[in-house]
Amino acid sequence: MSEAMATDPVSAGVWDRRHLLGLEGLSAEELRALLATAAGFGEVSRRSVWKRPDLRGCVVANLFFEDSTRTRTSFALAAGRLSADVLDFSSKGSSLSKGESLVDTAKNIEAMGVDVIVCRHHRSGASAKLAEAVSCSVINAGDGRHEHPTQGLLDIFTIADRFDRGEAFDLTGLRVAIVGDIAHSRVARSNLHALRTLGAEVVLVGPPTLVPGGLVRDGVTVSHDLDAVLPEVNVVNMLRVQFERITGPAFPSRREYQKLYGLTEERLARTRDDVLVMHPGPMNRGLEIDSVVADGPRSAILAQVTHGLAVRMACLLLVCRASGVVTT
Amino acid sequence: MSEAMATDPVSAGVWDRRHLLGLEGLSAEELRALLATAAGFGEVSRRSVWKRPDLRGCVVANLFFEDSTRTRTSFALAAGRLSADVLDFSSKGSSLSKGESLVDTAKNIEAMGVDVIVCRHHRSGASAKLAEAVSCSVINAGDGRHEHPTQGLLDIFTIADRFDRGEAFDLTGLRVAIVGDIAHSRVARSNLHALRTLGAEVVLVGPPTLVPGGLVRDGVTVSHDLDAVLPEVNVVNMLRVQFERITGPAFPSRREYQKLYGLTEERLARTRDDVLVMHPGPMNRGLEIDSVVADGPRSAILAQVTHGLAVRMACLLLVCRASGVVTT
Amino acid sequence: MSEAMATDPVSAGVWDRRHLLGLEGLSAEELRALLATAAGFGEVSRRSVWKRPDLRGCVVANLFFEDSTRTRTSFALAAGRLSADVLDFSSKGSSLSKGESLVDTAKNIEAMGVDVIVCRHHRSGASAKLAEAVSCSVINAGDGRHEHPTQGLLDIFTIADRFDRGEAFDLTGLRVAIVGDIAHSRVARSNLHALRTLGAEVVLVGPPTLVPGGLVRDGVTVSHDLDAVLPEVNVVNMLRVQFERITGPAFPSRREYQKLYGLTEERLARTRDDVLVMHPGPMNRGLEIDSVVADGPRSAILAQVTHGLAVRMACLLLVCRASGVVTT
Repeated sequence: MSEAMATDPVSAGVWDRRHLLGLEGLSAEELRALLATAAGFGEVSRRSVWKRPDLRGCVVANLFFEDSTRTRTSFALAAGRLSADVLDFSSKGSSLSKGESLVDTAKNIEAMGVDVIVCRHHRSGASAKLAEAVSCSVINAGDGRHEHPTQGLLDIFTIADRFDRGEAFDLTGLRVAIVGDIAHSRVARSNLHALRTLGAEVVLVGPPTLVPGGLVRDGVTVSHDLDAVLPEVNVVNMLRVQFERITGPAFPSRREYQKLYGLTEERLARTRDDVLVMHPGPMNRGLEIDSVVADGPRSAILAQVTHGLAVRMACLLLVCRASGVVTT
Repeated sequence: MSEAMATDPVSAGVWDRRHLLGLEGLSAEELRALLATAAGFGEVSRRSVWKRPDLRGCVVANLFFEDSTRTRTSFALAAGRLSADVLDFSSKGSSLSKGESLVDTAKNIEAMGVDVIVCRHHRSGASAKLAEAVSCSVINAGDGRHEHPTQGLLDIFTIADRFDRGEAFDLTGLRVAIVGDIAHSRVARSNLHALRTLGAEVVLVGPPTLVPGGLVRDGVTVSHDLDAVLPEVNVVNMLRVQFERITGPAFPSRREYQKLYGLTEERLARTRDDVLVMHPGPMNRGLEIDSVVADGPRSAILAQVTHGLAVRMACLLLVCRASGVVTT
Repeated sequence: MSEAMATDPVSAGVWDRRHLLGLEGLSAEELRALLATAAGFGEVSRRSVWKRPDLRGCVVANLFFEDSTRTRTSFALAAGRLSADVLDFSSKGSSLSKGESLVDTAKNIEAMGVDVIVCRHHRSGASAKLAEAVSCSVINAGDGRHEHPTQGLLDIFTIADRFDRGEAFDLTGLRVAIVGDIAHSRVARSNLHALRTLGAEVVLVGPPTLVPGGLVRDGVTVSHDLDAVLPEVNVVNMLRVQFERITGPAFPSRREYQKLYGLTEERLARTRDDVLVMHPGPMNRGLEIDSVVADGPRSAILAQVTHGLAVRMACLLLVCRASGVVTT
């Protein structure tokens, strides 16, 4: 760990945010503070029996308005590893079925002494709205098509880990393809912001209807030809296709999509030998990614899940340290 | 804290109930034992990082046959603050879908070593029935239209706190309006019993079809005219309108209800300057209460939620102490 | 406790399985290792306030694809008594609704650092499939009509306890009737294997359509006449009738079933005085068993539930010890 990171980033004045709503606008130093803290929790990536006492007595509430076993569970485990208590809310069986608003629900949760609300919501900006309404910490676990910052961080963490970018998490010289429905993807957005901030170049790949030109800027290009892109990139991040969202005559059929953008074994043969294959899960095997690729030696898909735990521990710890709920 | 309360109420012989099924029939001394114990947990009302070891190793089972995020969560947090483990049952996904009876379910839960069953049920008397069947403790978290004792206690706690009634929780001289569907309200019933026992006067306000005359007695009056009542009361407790329960030609429409019994800003202007506005939540904003009132300076609605935690901790602790599961 | 069992069965080389998928194929020595470990947790059968630190920091995931309050809760409590953390998955609200496969879900759960997956699935062999795919421990909590090993163990534990078979859990000389839909019952199968291994004789009783002749072997007989069997057995284990599974003209109606195979008070009068009546729950009162029998002095039904906790603690501890996640 670098000298800078050996110090706690909150005491060092590097991290002072009580909320984590997105990766857009975070400085490279802030991103590194989160990633280095996660790296310090590295042992969690091996199955091992320990707990840290950092958040003992704190309460973390999972407030999920969309299904998400993976993210919800990962936050619950991360909170547990730090000895926090976890409360689970879901849209079914909650007061929301009685018509209460998001903000009313959150204010009630806060009034019960909750320290962090982890929120997943189908509406872009929902977490930011919560953060304005409550005085406890809010972590965005995915809001509409806006951001999914902890997924972005765990993707970055996985890339830096595999390409051995050390304590600086400097991704300069790496070229990352994000493939799929960019238009509706909060994962793509969070990745994009953090990858650029840490120096990587990004190619957004997908059918014209699903890749908005408005995201092009310095270091970010768009392509509709996956085969042309594959030989030039170090990382391929395959997004989940959500056909339930993108039906209509303007969109490709499943078969067309698979043919043009599915990561098959043949396509993998066109990549660099050290390419890293990622997917945020859950996968549509045989659609955006073939099983032989997903389960093959270039895949970091399960490593992403493991790193997610460390990253979420880091986010929980730093927002609680910044809010003053816990001190070192 | 008074001399009397400084002693543990169980050792002092003031509290010896292993169940809490209702507030009807509790003596003023028993009510004070619960409230003073809650007051002793006062720090919990500020977000702070602590746990008490009192119920370490105990298991509290939430057995909820009706949706109730708020109450269920509050009990779970209260149990956690006392270091108990919490089990969550809900009518969906439980053996009840296989047709098992309430008592069978409860006996099974008890056989697993559970110490307290917290029960919410749509049938009046369900908790009392449970308490007869099992030897562990039972706390009523709302049974039909009968009682909701912890809600009553937290309402009393909030009133005593705001009007600074100190360690005696003596409410003499205060006049409390409970407004709404009194006929179907367990909240109204629990409040009524405890308010009277501690010396407050009660006015039950609502449309004739929803306010049973049978509740009138010494210190309890009925009115159908909210505007006439408002200037004379210290507290206005607005019940949630549950139109799903009270449809029919005999009942007012939403619009009529709002017009006659909604707590609007104009109506609030008719109250005493130090009036306290309460609501058990979740609110129908714009129906029984307007947002400007609910979120205004006279509202104690979020304080109620916070006090609910302390009150439930007190109830859990005292029934466990009385049953002998834990000793001081 | 015998000298042999006083030693930890894992260090002693008696138990080395990281998974518990069924009781078929377990040696008498292995069965005794589990049962003796459970007996060592005996205090849990009285409601008492304690936790053991054995699995502190371990995570147990309940992965249930079928409703089962009883089993799921029992595992959760057992894990908690050993200080493990518990994660609850259910088929609703999980990624499975997004079409992810069982193995993908399990691999993701494992990648989050889970130590034991407790799996209930409607497909026979599901747990074995999981165990091949993951490197963490798997405990089968019921797979199709195959096995339900912890139910078998708790049934054996209850029998050995009531007939005072001591540390050897030797059931020689006991005759056990298992009554009901044997063909579809994983409970029957797990009981059958373990009862035979520990020396008991078994009679499988039920209508011809529901008792497969293929299970007959040394020490196992089949009968369609409950009244003839009753006087000769020490234990009657009444299975739950699941009419939702066994409809069709070949099967008896509810009324016929009750008449021929329901355990009524009259039938109980035909048994030995010291007969033990068991049922895995939840019961169809008035169908396979009458309330006066279920709640009577010969019934061990609630004792089964209590022993289930101790048995599941033993299973969790031994698989974690064998996998090396925890050491003594």
